[in-house]
Amino acid sequence: MHSPSEQNYIQQLSIDCVIFGYQQKQLNVLVPKLDFRGDFWALPSGFIFQGEGIDQAAQRILEERTGIKDIYLDQFRVFGDAERSNSSFLERIIHLNEDKLGDNRFNRKELEWITRRFVSIGYYALVDIYKVIPQKSEIDESMEWYPIRDLPTMIMDHNEMVAQALETLRLNLDQKLIGFNLLPETFTMKEVQELYEAIYDKPFARNNFQKKILDLNVLERLEKKFTGAANKAPFLYRFQR
Amino acid sequence: MHSPSEQNYIQQLSIDCVIFGYQQKQLNVLVPKLDFRGDFWALPSGFIFQGEGIDQAAQRILEERTGIKDIYLDQFRVFGDAERSNSSFLERIIHLNEDKLGDNRFNRKELEWITRRFVSIGYYALVDIYKVIPQKSEIDESMEWYPIRDLPTMIMDHNEMVAQALETLRLNLDQKLIGFNLLPETFTMKEVQELYEAIYDKPFARNNFQKKILDLNVLERLEKKFTGAANKAPFLYRFQR
Repeated sequence: MHSPSEQNYIQQLSIDCVIFGYQQKQLNVLVPKLDFRGDFWALPSGFIFQGEGIDQAAQRILEERTGIKDIYLDQFRVFGDAERSNSSFLERIIHLNEDKLGDNRFNRKELEWITRRFVSIGYYALVDIYKVIPQKSEIDESMEWYPIRDLPTMIMDHNEMVAQALETLRLNLDQKLIGFNLLPETFTMKEVQELYEAIYDKPFARNNFQKKILDLNVLERLEKKFTGAANKAPFLYRFQR
Repeated sequence: MHSPSEQNYIQQLSIDCVIFGYQQKQLNVLVPKLDFRGDFWALPSGFIFQGEGIDQAAQRILEERTGIKDIYLDQFRVFGDAERSNSSFLERIIHLNEDKLGDNRFNRKELEWITRRFVSIGYYALVDIYKVIPQKSEIDESMEWYPIRDLPTMIMDHNEMVAQALETLRLNLDQKLIGFNLLPETFTMKEVQELYEAIYDKPFARNNFQKKILDLNVLERLEKKFTGAANKAPFLYRFQR
């Protein structure tokens, strides 16, 4: 991370990333724990260079934190309440970590810069956990996947950000299914249903679900391979090119 | 408008408002023409005070420009390409209006402030044209409703903003129908259909449309009044409380 006190970033504007990870029928969120005494968790965040588009900044932050490029990600909301940036959590960090301040990770000048009011643009991504190598930043103690139902309490409005990102993910899943690139080359309807059930956190009726997905007109059904028990083998699908 | 060069605003962050107006089966957009030689149109815009939430700032800007309070409005997207704020149009304004600069509307210091790169949060609203009294600002020559199909070419990415706001309006219309407050206390299915047709710019089949709207479960059907030709009178509806 470049020193945020430099004037090379747009001031008072940040990006927070909700990185959803899917694996084994489970939806998770990537959450760093800050390397300060006091147990602080915060979404992966960053700032926007003066010469950088906001989408490019989000891609850069995501790449720095996950090691993978060209992830599909999108804005979902801007968080800009006047009160959201009251710096009580920063005061707690300072109070609990007086001895650590002044080291080369986070000096007082940077603290001043970062304790101003911030408006934050929320981005979300949905990735295959197997493709990600979480990269903690120099102010993180660790960075781990947490099941969506068992997230730690994060600083500021970050838990609310996850809730709103999840709402957007659910609303857009039908349209974005291909883009998320979460299914293998060929897959069964059951695998699609498991993905939906993880994201919506509820079961779907099999027949209705199949009809709904086929009505999206994005899948191509492949021939069943002939096997001894062909009639019991599920159909395989792939996305239309 | 307060002088933007003062430090009371968040720098490099603006709000642009796409104000849709519905009237007589027509969808329009409220677009000011700037009071500078050269024919410049721009969406109603403003900045965010240091102590003000972004939603409150958008409400304030909308109220300043329409004279009405408590309009339903919502964010639809942030526009933040690095190149969007290249100041070519401002250079043209300056070139064409050298003699006007320095008057009390727009001095050079303000021009410097405003020609920096800006990230802009797009908000949209949908209002009843009859309830609005457009209020031009001191830098506007006029402020008028333009049919959505006949908008002037605006500065920067403002035409693209309208396109994206319209896409969001269409996506959310089913959910937001009550909130927009565009229909009278009681109304016919035909009036709902006309509103949808204006917003989607296409006709809907009557029976399918009625079923779709009733399936939203937000309408209450009222008893037909007894009249001589009762069987020909259309049913009246109102929103469920």
